Amino acid sequence: MPDAGSLRSVRLDEEAGELELIDQTLLPNRTVLLRLSDPRDIREAIYSLRVRGAPAIGIAAAYGVYLAIRRSAARDWDALAVEFRAAKGLLASARPTAVNLSWALDRMERRLDAARGRPVGEVKNALLEEAEAVRAEDEEACRAIGENGLSLLGPGWGILTHCNAGWLATSRYGTALAPLYLGAERGYGFRVFADETRPLLQGARLTAWELDRAGIDLTLICDNMASTVMKRGLVKAVLTGCDRVAANGDVANKIGTSGVAVLARHYGIPFYVLGPVSTVDLACPTGAEIPVEERPAEEVTDRWYVRRMAPEGVKVLNPAFDVTDAGLITAIVTERGIARPPYGDSLARIVQP
Amino acid sequence: MPDAGSLRSVRLDEEAGELELIDQTLLPNRTVLLRLSDPRDIREAIYSLRVRGAPAIGIAAAYGVYLAIRRSAARDWDALAVEFRAAKGLLASARPTAVNLSWALDRMERRLDAARGRPVGEVKNALLEEAEAVRAEDEEACRAIGENGLSLLGPGWGILTHCNAGWLATSRYGTALAPLYLGAERGYGFRVFADETRPLLQGARLTAWELDRAGIDLTLICDNMASTVMKRGLVKAVLTGCDRVAANGDVANKIGTSGVAVLARHYGIPFYVLGPVSTVDLACPTGAEIPVEERPAEEVTDRWYVRRMAPEGVKVLNPAFDVTDAGLITAIVTERGIARPPYGDSLARIVQP
Repeated sequence: MPDAGSLRSVRLDEEAGELELIDQTLLPNRTVLLRLSDPRDIREAIYSLRVRGAPAIGIAAAYGVYLAIRRSAARDWDALAVEFRAAKGLLASARPTAVNLSWALDRMERRLDAARGRPVGEVKNALLEEAEAVRAEDEEACRAIGENGLSLLGPGWGILTHCNAGWLATSRYGTALAPLYLGAERGYGFRVFADETRPLLQGARLTAWELDRAGIDLTLICDNMASTVMKRGLVKAVLTGCDRVAANGDVANKIGTSGVAVLARHYGIPFYVLGPVSTVDLACPTGAEIPVEERPAEEVTDRWYVRRMAPEGVKVLNPAFDVTDAGLITAIVTERGIARPPYGDSLARIVQP
Repeated sequence: MPDAGSLRSVRLDEEAGELELIDQTLLPNRTVLLRLSDPRDIREAIYSLRVRGAPAIGIAAAYGVYLAIRRSAARDWDALAVEFRAAKGLLASARPTAVNLSWALDRMERRLDAARGRPVGEVKNALLEEAEAVRAEDEEACRAIGENGLSLLGPGWGILTHCNAGWLATSRYGTALAPLYLGAERGYGFRVFADETRPLLQGARLTAWELDRAGIDLTLICDNMASTVMKRGLVKAVLTGCDRVAANGDVANKIGTSGVAVLARHYGIPFYVLGPVSTVDLACPTGAEIPVEERPAEEVTDRWYVRRMAPEGVKVLNPAFDVTDAGLITAIVTERGIARPPYGDSLARIVQP
């Protein structure tokens, strides 16, 4: 697929003991690689969205908790486990909505627990192996999501996407953007509309940059232009990623996603959510139980700006995510297949086959 | 009403022969008054949105065309009429969507024609009188729209508004915001949510500033948060202004309005459009015939920003307006009464009683 070339959103330099991240807050103006090893720095990078996207922060956290114990002087499993759990708690608190963060950390902890009592060097190796598996499985999942997603699309279609669910948000290829990369390789000639995605402009800064580099036809719009683009008949399908899928199919994703879903329903356009099975949280019955992160007002009022764009002291709401009702979602595309309504059954069959 | 105090969006200084405008592109950071007399400068102020809002640009154009002939050395009506029509053509081309611009200029021209053959001084006085009438009637209309609009609202309601349809957009009080000013005076205790309204942020910069100064409870949101705010049950009614209302009730207004209307319908919230009768264009059968202004890509990609917020050369769509289907509009509130569907009848009855 014509995706990132050699660039990766998150990469482990095992020799140096460092996590290498593209600082996504500086795109598209500068491509700066950060090298981090301290879990406090990795937590900051996740909180500040230097690395973002549900799968990518899961991978960063898995590597982060490994790096936290990699150079540990602990003599036995118990001492190592104490350090591990401190780092895990720190990283898990970085962002609450995407389930992949806690999913990856829980998976690392299960591997730790499975190695209970083993020599420290062996435990470290097991954790490295597990973190690498989290990354490798995500890459494989994204490739399969690309195939499954592409089966829903036709040549020449106009596609609207919200936020960034491309390779920057994952290990590689992306979720919502994976079918577009695959389609480009196969001559589909998609025409993509990217919502800019306020307040932090992941669509304008990241999706536009990704698709531009891959030579895919891309038109940037402000979020509030989606209705007009749909009304003009320019959009045949909507593709978005997801941060957490509840058992009933409700989907938490970047703020604005639910509005796009309502518009798609109104204009008779299919609305597809794409993500790895690791994003499905069967323990969460509905969207009402998903915690939605509220972020600082400054992101809305003056971040990125020369001057303030709203009066001093104005009250601001800044939820980072919203929940899209399952009833508005045409299908949920995973690496293991495509779930259709009613999702209570179809998701469970896919996640626990 | 607790509106603008002594500030006005547009004011004629007849003694100096100058139009005084608040430069709205500099709000909320600086309150700068521009003094213009050359119609080319007034056209630039309209095109660049230093003065904006359908009623306000109508008033600015009426004054502008008067100022264009005020110091004319023309000896007779014919010579004056040539100068008038040149200025009219210049001003009319500034922005295509809001009908108030051409409506006000046509009205001025009818007054000119009615004074055909009269002495130059008398013609100038007639045009001054007409321009003042355009302004005064708008102020009266806004006051009545406030009363009519308030009759649709209840105490303590959450109200969502898009773009700016306040006193900055009119002669005084505003259209969509007039009921809020009136309600504040009468202790309604509204809680207002203002969409920031990308790309030029009229909601964040202008509506937030207006309501803040008037002490009205205001929460700023990004456009893509409207769905979440409605879903949380925080909004009991949506109020927007309008740039042109077609005979069938389709409404052109700031880009994003149609999306808010779709959301309101989905969440079962009434969607009210407020504007003076001068905004209704019975000559325009439906929204499909309303010209939608396309503005420069830079407004989306880098205007207001320190650094570019999208890759160089990215393709951008930047329609300044969209058209909301009549079927999504609960009522259209004018100074002469409230039109309800079917609008073909109700609007005609209000406009041509």
